[in-house]
Amino acid sequence: MRIVVIGANGTIGRVVYNKLIDKGYDVTEVYHSSGDYRVDIRQPESIQELFKKTGKHDAIVSCVGKAYFGSFNEMTLEDYYTGFEHKVMGQVALVKIGIEYLNPGGSFTLTTGITCDDPIPYGTGLAMANGALNAFVKNTAINLENDIRINAVSPGLLELSADKLGRFFPGHTPIPISKVINAYLKSIEGKITGQIIRVQG
Amino acid sequence: MRIVVIGANGTIGRVVYNKLIDKGYDVTEVYHSSGDYRVDIRQPESIQELFKKTGKHDAIVSCVGKAYFGSFNEMTLEDYYTGFEHKVMGQVALVKIGIEYLNPGGSFTLTTGITCDDPIPYGTGLAMANGALNAFVKNTAINLENDIRINAVSPGLLELSADKLGRFFPGHTPIPISKVINAYLKSIEGKITGQIIRVQG
Repeated sequence: MRIVVIGANGTIGRVVYNKLIDKGYDVTEVYHSSGDYRVDIRQPESIQELFKKTGKHDAIVSCVGKAYFGSFNEMTLEDYYTGFEHKVMGQVALVKIGIEYLNPGGSFTLTTGITCDDPIPYGTGLAMANGALNAFVKNTAINLENDIRINAVSPGLLELSADKLGRFFPGHTPIPISKVINAYLKSIEGKITGQIIRVQG
Repeated sequence: MRIVVIGANGTIGRVVYNKLIDKGYDVTEVYHSSGDYRVDIRQPESIQELFKKTGKHDAIVSCVGKAYFGSFNEMTLEDYYTGFEHKVMGQVALVKIGIEYLNPGGSFTLTTGITCDDPIPYGTGLAMANGALNAFVKNTAINLENDIRINAVSPGLLELSADKLGRFFPGHTPIPISKVINAYLKSIEGKITGQIIRVQG
């Protein structure tokens, strides 16, 4: 399989990339601002250029997406746009443009998150992006042609991030990274579509 | 109870307004472009002005929100913004600004929809707005102070709209309007918060 991992230098992207390499796939790693292949997912032209260079794939994996994280009371109306413009529309654009660069039967695997199901005090902006993405995945799955599939992995708090972020996720059980990697493999190597693969501790 | 219904001339807004009047509440009806009280929910200044005129309320009810409805293949990246800017951010702004005009113990009742749970072919834009709103409601509920509550009603295909829209909702059982009205009453008169009140046939 020819696979591209967007955001391969992030916490999740890195381990997913390494696992796919270990399994012997032909994997292209894409970063935002370093490396041989770069993309700014907020710029459709940048995505177009990336795929022109990387060519046809069997799986497009996205591990990117920023959103506002912070106090509800201090959150301005502008802050609500961060997650929509970056995490949501960045990944939507990867799909809309990436369709042309996916072989029949290929798959998209996006990254969403648990906060839309399981609210945390500072998570409104992130949760809204995740909720929009989950709906995008379920609705896009029924519209894709050529047996192309789409799923999203929805991880909770990672063991890897628990030291830094645990205090923002009261009562959340941290997840071993192996469970998160498996969720991506379920989408990439399996046959499911339109699923939000929730990974909880 | 002093209640304001935004979008009181819409299909749902009208029947909710009439029911609240029948029950003897002091209800202000707000339209987009006619009547004594008007608001453009995309303009925070317009919302601010409206609430300055209408004063303090015990319930703010929103029955508004446009989103893109149409073919996935023809949907441009711009079309994804319609639902976010109108249905999502319009209702978010009503809450962020309306908080100052809600009495302690008061409630917000927003309008979302079933398409984010139950996909239909033309529904990607609408579904994403609904998914973002559901997450907003669940996450905002835990952050509101002064016992203020927030819920969203998530209606499916209405019996009232079945002639016009039924063909876009294959296999959806149309809902009697009385069930939808009850969902709004559950939020306005009840004590629940952070709930997506799903109304299905």
